[in-house]
Amino acid sequence: MKKPIYVGLVHHPVVNRRGEPVISAITNLDIHDIARTCRTFGVNSFFVINPSETQLMLLNDIMAHWKKGAGGKSNPERKEAFSVVKGLESVEMAISSIEEETGMRPEIWTTSARDGENRLCWQDARRRIDESGEQPVLILFGTAGGLSEEVFSISDFIIEPIKGKNCYNHLSVRSAVAITLDRLLSRRI
Amino acid sequence: MKKPIYVGLVHHPVVNRRGEPVISAITNLDIHDIARTCRTFGVNSFFVINPSETQLMLLNDIMAHWKKGAGGKSNPERKEAFSVVKGLESVEMAISSIEEETGMRPEIWTTSARDGENRLCWQDARRRIDESGEQPVLILFGTAGGLSEEVFSISDFIIEPIKGKNCYNHLSVRSAVAITLDRLLSRRI
Repeated sequence: MKKPIYVGLVHHPVVNRRGEPVISAITNLDIHDIARTCRTFGVNSFFVINPSETQLMLLNDIMAHWKKGAGGKSNPERKEAFSVVKGLESVEMAISSIEEETGMRPEIWTTSARDGENRLCWQDARRRIDESGEQPVLILFGTAGGLSEEVFSISDFIIEPIKGKNCYNHLSVRSAVAITLDRLLSRRI
Repeated sequence: MKKPIYVGLVHHPVVNRRGEPVISAITNLDIHDIARTCRTFGVNSFFVINPSETQLMLLNDIMAHWKKGAGGKSNPERKEAFSVVKGLESVEMAISSIEEETGMRPEIWTTSARDGENRLCWQDARRRIDESGEQPVLILFGTAGGLSEEVFSISDFIIEPIKGKNCYNHLSVRSAVAITLDRLLSRRI
């Protein structure tokens, strides 16, 4: 696989349970779990996207503990996982960062727990990743009640929801990222 | 699929990073994330296994908030997820609980981030789940540094590790459960 893959965890623009626009707070364990998953599946960078300066300072404090402080000494695997994490203020900045790194504009893929029209099915998503071509892909996940319409509107594809055995569709974003990257990037089982 | 599937999150007997036996503490977000994943994939029960009475009291307090208290009112999907959670003192009690419920002794499947001999490969694991037959399966996951030898020794199968794109094998247990249940129980993608 040649395509560089990037993951973005979006704290804004997202909606709350009532569909209203909010800025959600950074959750410590999101960063740990998703960084470890991204490192496992060879993701180039994991962008933590939050427009709040103080939230990004919190992220930097957490990262410093694991990258430079006591955490990294006692747990070098966590230090390695955190090496893929970057805090940024907006989805646009994540796109620019990928353009600077690769010289190409990424395809934007969004994710949702909800069904809808024109969803990219898992087989096609996997096929697109496996195809030749070096255009990077940025996969965006929403926190809180999910990505807001303005993010879907700039995306090239919305991946179909993860379905289990029934109608329950309330995975944590940590679990959704794990399953998504396994489905798209793992060695075929 | 007819086989009843059970998941156990083991806090003892497990080992720490140095391979020494420990009892690990219950992590709030483990319960939330794994309950939601279990509910998504139709798991019959999710056993939180910890021999400490005070730890199981903590679990009951957390569950009460979501099943009977304010949490369940504001977030009914979380209440539904918690309906599959049961706190128990030992792996043996989980086996007995399944025997009482189904009238059959379960197959014990264990998981590990480490390679080794006689691992059950993912294809065979999936095939066994899909086969006819009603013998329940109990899938055990270790916290801390993983399950200890005495758990592996009573297991019928050890599933092979989840491998990503490289040698990094440090997924969180929350992510490992999500990927495992998706690989074994999801509708085929």
